[in-house]
Amino acid sequence: MISDKMKRFLVEDENSLVKPANEVAVVGLQNRLNHALLLLTTDKYAVVPVLDSDSKMKGLISMPTIMHAIMDIEDVHFEKLGEIEVGEVMDTDYPSVKEDFELEDVLRMLVNHAFITVVDDDNYFKGIITRSEILKGTNRIAHDFEKVYHVTEKETIAH
Amino acid sequence: MISDKMKRFLVEDENSLVKPANEVAVVGLQNRLNHALLLLTTDKYAVVPVLDSDSKMKGLISMPTIMHAIMDIEDVHFEKLGEIEVGEVMDTDYPSVKEDFELEDVLRMLVNHAFITVVDDDNYFKGIITRSEILKGTNRIAHDFEKVYHVTEKETIAH
Repeated sequence: MISDKMKRFLVEDENSLVKPANEVAVVGLQNRLNHALLLLTTDKYAVVPVLDSDSKMKGLISMPTIMHAIMDIEDVHFEKLGEIEVGEVMDTDYPSVKEDFELEDVLRMLVNHAFITVVDDDNYFKGIITRSEILKGTNRIAHDFEKVYHVTEKETIAH
Repeated sequence: MISDKMKRFLVEDENSLVKPANEVAVVGLQNRLNHALLLLTTDKYAVVPVLDSDSKMKGLISMPTIMHAIMDIEDVHFEKLGEIEVGEVMDTDYPSVKEDFELEDVLRMLVNHAFITVVDDDNYFKGIITRSEILKGTNRIAHDFEKVYHVTEKETIAH
C-alpha cells in the first residue's frame, strides 16, 4: 500500500498521470512495417501501441522488432518492409492496466517498462503512463515532502 | 537539496546507481551505421553511447537518428548504411554528469532523458544512470519510507 501522503506527491493530479490516447502516436494492425518505421523515426518514443480498426489495444511495435522481422542470418531484407503487416510481428506481451489502476502496480511495472498502456474494460486504448511522469513525482517527493511533513526516525525496540 | 533520509531510500547503494561502462553496449565513432543498427536491434536500449578510440564520450546514436541520416523527402536509402560513419550523424547534445554528481541533478535530468551518461574529469566514459534504477528507489520510498520514519503534517501558522 502507498500512503495518501506519498500519493499526494507522486501524482500531482490524477488526470495528468495518463497521457490520453489522442496525444499518443499509434499504428494499425494492418499497417505495413515501412509505415511503422517512418512513424517511429519521427515520434519520440522507441515503441508505439498497435490498435485494431476499433481502437482496441492489440500490441506494441518497436524498431528492434521491425529489424528482427526483416533480418535473417545472412542479410537485412529491407524490401520486406512494404510487405509485412504490423500485426504479424508485433509484441503481444505488453504491460497494461485498467483505468482504475492502483498506483503501486504502475510503479512496479515501470521499473522494467518504458511506459504502461491504459485500457478500459472492453480493451479500448485510453492512453499511456510514462516513466517521465512518475519521475516528476519522484522529484517532488525528494524536494518538497519534508517541507510539508515532519519526518522523524521511529524508535527501535529496546532490549 | 535532497535530505539524507530521502537519499537513503532513493539510492540503495551509491555504487549500484551507475551501470558501469563494461556492462553498457557502445559504438565507435568510426563504426558505420549498419553496425550501430545491428547493435541497437539486439540491445535493449533505444539509444547507445558513442566513444572514440580512447573510450572518451562523444555522443549518442539512436535508430531514429540513423533513419533520418539515410532518408530524403522521396525515399529511404538503405545502401547508405554501410557508407556513413556514426560520428558523422550522432547526437552530440547529450545529458552527462561527472562521477561526483549530485543526486538532485540526475533526478531532474531523468525526467526528460532515458539515461544519463557518467564521465570522469577527462571525459572518459564511466557508465550510465538509467530511469529504471531511480524508479526502484521511488518504489522503495513509496512502500518503505513510512515504515522507518514517523511522518506528521507540519503545523500551519495560525493567524
